Amino acid sequence: MQSFKELVAQFSQQFDQQHFPEEPCQLYNAATHILGIGGKRIRPVLCLMGNELFDTLHPDAFQVGNAVELFHNFTLVHDDIMDKAPLRRGKPTVHTVYGDPAAILAGDVMLINVYDRLNKVQPRYKQKIISVFNKAAIEVCEGQQLDMDFEAMEPEEVQYDSYVNMIGLKTSVLLAASLQLGAIIGGAGEGNQEHIYQFGKNIGIAFQIQDDYLDAFGDPEKFGKQQGGDILVNKKTFLLLKAFELCNPAERAALKTLMETSPDDKVDRVLDLFHSCKVDAWAEKEKERFQELAFRRLEDIAVLSKRKMPLMELADYLLNRQQ
Amino acid sequence: MQSFKELVAQFSQQFDQQHFPEEPCQLYNAATHILGIGGKRIRPVLCLMGNELFDTLHPDAFQVGNAVELFHNFTLVHDDIMDKAPLRRGKPTVHTVYGDPAAILAGDVMLINVYDRLNKVQPRYKQKIISVFNKAAIEVCEGQQLDMDFEAMEPEEVQYDSYVNMIGLKTSVLLAASLQLGAIIGGAGEGNQEHIYQFGKNIGIAFQIQDDYLDAFGDPEKFGKQQGGDILVNKKTFLLLKAFELCNPAERAALKTLMETSPDDKVDRVLDLFHSCKVDAWAEKEKERFQELAFRRLEDIAVLSKRKMPLMELADYLLNRQQ
Repeated sequence: MQSFKELVAQFSQQFDQQHFPEEPCQLYNAATHILGIGGKRIRPVLCLMGNELFDTLHPDAFQVGNAVELFHNFTLVHDDIMDKAPLRRGKPTVHTVYGDPAAILAGDVMLINVYDRLNKVQPRYKQKIISVFNKAAIEVCEGQQLDMDFEAMEPEEVQYDSYVNMIGLKTSVLLAASLQLGAIIGGAGEGNQEHIYQFGKNIGIAFQIQDDYLDAFGDPEKFGKQQGGDILVNKKTFLLLKAFELCNPAERAALKTLMETSPDDKVDRVLDLFHSCKVDAWAEKEKERFQELAFRRLEDIAVLSKRKMPLMELADYLLNRQQ
Repeated sequence: MQSFKELVAQFSQQFDQQHFPEEPCQLYNAATHILGIGGKRIRPVLCLMGNELFDTLHPDAFQVGNAVELFHNFTLVHDDIMDKAPLRRGKPTVHTVYGDPAAILAGDVMLINVYDRLNKVQPRYKQKIISVFNKAAIEVCEGQQLDMDFEAMEPEEVQYDSYVNMIGLKTSVLLAASLQLGAIIGGAGEGNQEHIYQFGKNIGIAFQIQDDYLDAFGDPEKFGKQQGGDILVNKKTFLLLKAFELCNPAERAALKTLMETSPDDKVDRVLDLFHSCKVDAWAEKEKERFQELAFRRLEDIAVLSKRKMPLMELADYLLNRQQ
């Protein structure tokens, strides 16, 4: 069994090859561009870890890892068009360089390639692999639509539970499914598959809460992003939505005015409101709640504890950044 | 064995049901919108006919038929965004009604649903079905990119063979693959699969030549489109590209000027040039050439001639409209 870092190195070595033919070059350069922007390759490595939790690594876990990483990158290309995002990881997005038509088409061809990978796994679990993958893939699309729907609503109109559901779909189900897909390849039964799926889903939500927290309260030098970036663009985050719930009427009115008028000291004043309604303390507890739910599911998996160590270390690494 | 019309009725009956859940409604209403615009359902029926050429109809042919029809509609949604098309079959396009983001996402979710259908076929030919489908799906994307590349070029820069290749990818490989997918379900061997594929591909190209011909020379009342629609927008068609090759230098200069200046009598004057360089006669011969190639492949298929009747009737129906 290998650590997260060892598996990242192993996966990247075979993923960083040429994925596409050369022609038509506009199409395939666009597809190659997003893969060159990089990323932590968390999802495919979760697939390898899900496999290794139950059995020795099987080549199919690399095929499925390739598929989930290609799928993730496909969603980035299309989401960036929908969000009109000029940059990703400090580099120009695909549609910025190649135009919307080639970017749409590059995403499409990546999504089709996903199924070329899935089609290569052993027949005995192919149906299950495609079915688990597809459920997650559809939910990711639904999550993106809900996110756009919520962005068009007033913050107080968005129910907290609906928001958690959206975040789960948009960001967590693919992490969860990656683990489950690996577990299927490793021979896990239905019960263990469900546990590892829920472990991944809850870790994903805890991670998103932490991400929102760090955007507001983190040290920008350590976090690598502008502090209050979400606040500046009125992004609907865990913090903002919960703050609207926790605030008294006067604070709520102040928060709305800040969002509508965007004064120069907007970030500081919103942060003051976040502190006064104690949404910062709430976020830390909420993150712990999901982390707790995740670890309980990891405990329930019927394998030797020592096999779970790499996943515990990964969760610790993901959920204790910048502290 | 059934005729094309009987199979269309049988397919449509089970296809015209609710394909998607209700929520998120923006996403799924967008996906449902394109299916409601209708269409001749040629591709899925080719799948049924490919099956029936070799064996009695199997339910898997309906699953795969659903998949190819969903895929075809996915390409329409995304192509209409890329082409900024306001109308399709006289109805507003998906992105016009629901906006680009929901239209991109609706296409994505339809494409994922395609593989839910393909995942339902029997394991004994699932790998082959997905692999044949994927090859065609990728080629359709490549064809769309090449089409956009060619549209940005001067007509005399586009090589005729490259153009035929692009049309084959964009419009014919899915027809060809639909027949082959049905043949696989019907138990056809590799040789017969290749024959029926080439039959479909050549019929598709012949059909496209006819379509270009009718757009220029057809009776607009019978054809149901504005005469010279392609000429008005300088669309690169078989006729235009070949006319550039057949024209003398003076005619070529006149054609270029007409394209650049678009005078009121553009259609008539371009048609005069088409007549004088005899591209109309060429197009009829070229269509016959591909039709001939197709029928030779149909003859080569090792089944009783009477089983081929529905396909011959369909080809006749498709290739002898408006005459």
